[in-house]
Amino acid sequence: MKCFDTHIHSEGRSIEDLTAMSNEGIKAAITCAFYPIKPMYQETLIDLFRKLIDFESYRGKKAGMEIYAAVGIHPRCIPPSYNKVLDAMESIDSVAFGEIGLEEVTKEEVEVFEGQLKLAKKIDKPCIIHTPRKNKLDVTMKILEILEKIGFPESLAIVDHVSVETVEIVVKRGYIAGLTVQPEKLKSDEVVLIVENYGFENFVLNSDTGFSESDMFAVVKTADILAKKFNKKDVEKIAWSNGMKFFGINL
Amino acid sequence: MKCFDTHIHSEGRSIEDLTAMSNEGIKAAITCAFYPIKPMYQETLIDLFRKLIDFESYRGKKAGMEIYAAVGIHPRCIPPSYNKVLDAMESIDSVAFGEIGLEEVTKEEVEVFEGQLKLAKKIDKPCIIHTPRKNKLDVTMKILEILEKIGFPESLAIVDHVSVETVEIVVKRGYIAGLTVQPEKLKSDEVVLIVENYGFENFVLNSDTGFSESDMFAVVKTADILAKKFNKKDVEKIAWSNGMKFFGINL
Repeated sequence: MKCFDTHIHSEGRSIEDLTAMSNEGIKAAITCAFYPIKPMYQETLIDLFRKLIDFESYRGKKAGMEIYAAVGIHPRCIPPSYNKVLDAMESIDSVAFGEIGLEEVTKEEVEVFEGQLKLAKKIDKPCIIHTPRKNKLDVTMKILEILEKIGFPESLAIVDHVSVETVEIVVKRGYIAGLTVQPEKLKSDEVVLIVENYGFENFVLNSDTGFSESDMFAVVKTADILAKKFNKKDVEKIAWSNGMKFFGINL
Repeated sequence: MKCFDTHIHSEGRSIEDLTAMSNEGIKAAITCAFYPIKPMYQETLIDLFRKLIDFESYRGKKAGMEIYAAVGIHPRCIPPSYNKVLDAMESIDSVAFGEIGLEEVTKEEVEVFEGQLKLAKKIDKPCIIHTPRKNKLDVTMKILEILEKIGFPESLAIVDHVSVETVEIVVKRGYIAGLTVQPEKLKSDEVVLIVENYGFENFVLNSDTGFSESDMFAVVKTADILAKKFNKKDVEKIAWSNGMKFFGINL
C-alpha cells in the first residue's frame, strides 16, 4: 500500500535507506527540523531549513520519494536568540512548522512554542507538535492548554506521538493525533486498538525514523496489519489521505 | 582486517550503516566537514564542527567505531564571510582540517584554501586536501604549487582522491596520497597497481562514503584484496597505521 510517513528526520537516513523505504511503498514523507546538538547560533537553524527544503527533497527524489520539509525550533535545540529564525519561518516555503512543542516545559520552551504557534496561526501554517516520552500526559495537557489559550485552529495541529493514555484528550478536542509506531513509542497492536475505539478520521501514521536506530518501515508494516482487519479505504485514510489533506499536498 | 577509513562523511550514513561498517572491520574513521548546500551563514559551519565533534563521535561509539572530526571549509561550501570560521578552526579540538582544497580554482577558493593552509601550518594541524573529479591533473598541480609557495610541511598533507594519473606527482614530492576507492573514483585493481609501483609507505585508504549512494565497505574490501597479494604488514600500513600516524591517533 502507498504510504505517507508524516514525521521523519530524513537527515539521519542514508540515501540507500530512503530508497529501501520507497521500495516498500513509502512514497511521501515530512522531514522535521531538528538539530542533534544545541546550536550556538540561530543562523544554523536557518541554513538547516534551506538544507531540508533543497537537499533533502533532492535526496528524496533520487530515492523515489517526495520529501517535504517542516521547519521550526524543537524544544531540545533552542538557540540563544531566535528572532531571525521566526522571520525565516515566516518567509521560507515550507509545508508545515515542526517539530515544535514542549519537552521539559521550561519558561524558555513555553515562550518559543507560543511564539511559533502565534506565527503559524497568523499565516495558516499546519504544525507538527511534539509530545515527550517523560510525563507525556502532563506535558500534553500543558500543550492543549496553550493551544486553547492562543485560540489555535484545531485543523492546523497534529499533536504527535500520542500514547494509549493521551489519545482521547487529543482527539476529543478536535486535533489530529499522530500515531508514531516504534519499539519505544506505539506498537502496531496499540494502533489497532486506537482505531477500533476512535475510528480513522483524526489520525495520521508516522515512524519518526531518523538519527537513532529505528524501524524505518514501521508505517508500511502497520498499514499492512490494519489492512487485514479493516476496510482498505479506512486504512488509506491514516496511511495516506488524512496527512495529504492536513498538509495541503496534492500528490 | 581492522581498518581505518580516513575520509568519510558520517552524517550521510545512518546509525545502522555505521554499525554494519564496524561489523565488517572498520573500527576508526575520519568524518570530514561538508555542508551539502552553500551556507548563507558562517555560523552554520561552526555549529557543524561542534556537531561532528560531539554528535558524530557519539554515534560512532554507539556503532562500535571511533569517529574523529576534521573541520574546515570545503571549496563547494564557502559562506559569504569566514573570519569566525577560521577562529573556530584554530580553537576547536579537531584531529585535522578537512576537507579543504580546490574545486574550480576560483579566486575565492584559492583565498580560502590558502587561509586554511597558513593556519594549519601555524598550529601544526594535519590537512585532508580534496582534489576534484574534473581537471584533476591541472587542479592537483595548482594545489601542489600553493603548498610549495606557502612552504607547507609535506608531513601534514594528505592529497586526497589521487588518480592513476596524479599519484606520481603527489608521492614524489613527499606528500601522503589518499586512495579513495569508489566506483567513480579508484577501483581496487588500480590500488593494487599503485602499491606495486610505489610501495605502501605514502598511502592511506578511504571510501568517501557519505551523502550519496556509495560502497561503505570499500576500504575493507580493498584491504582483503591486497592481503591476498601482498605482505599483511604492508597492507596494514595503508589500511590502518599510516593513517593513525599521520593524524597522531593512538587507538
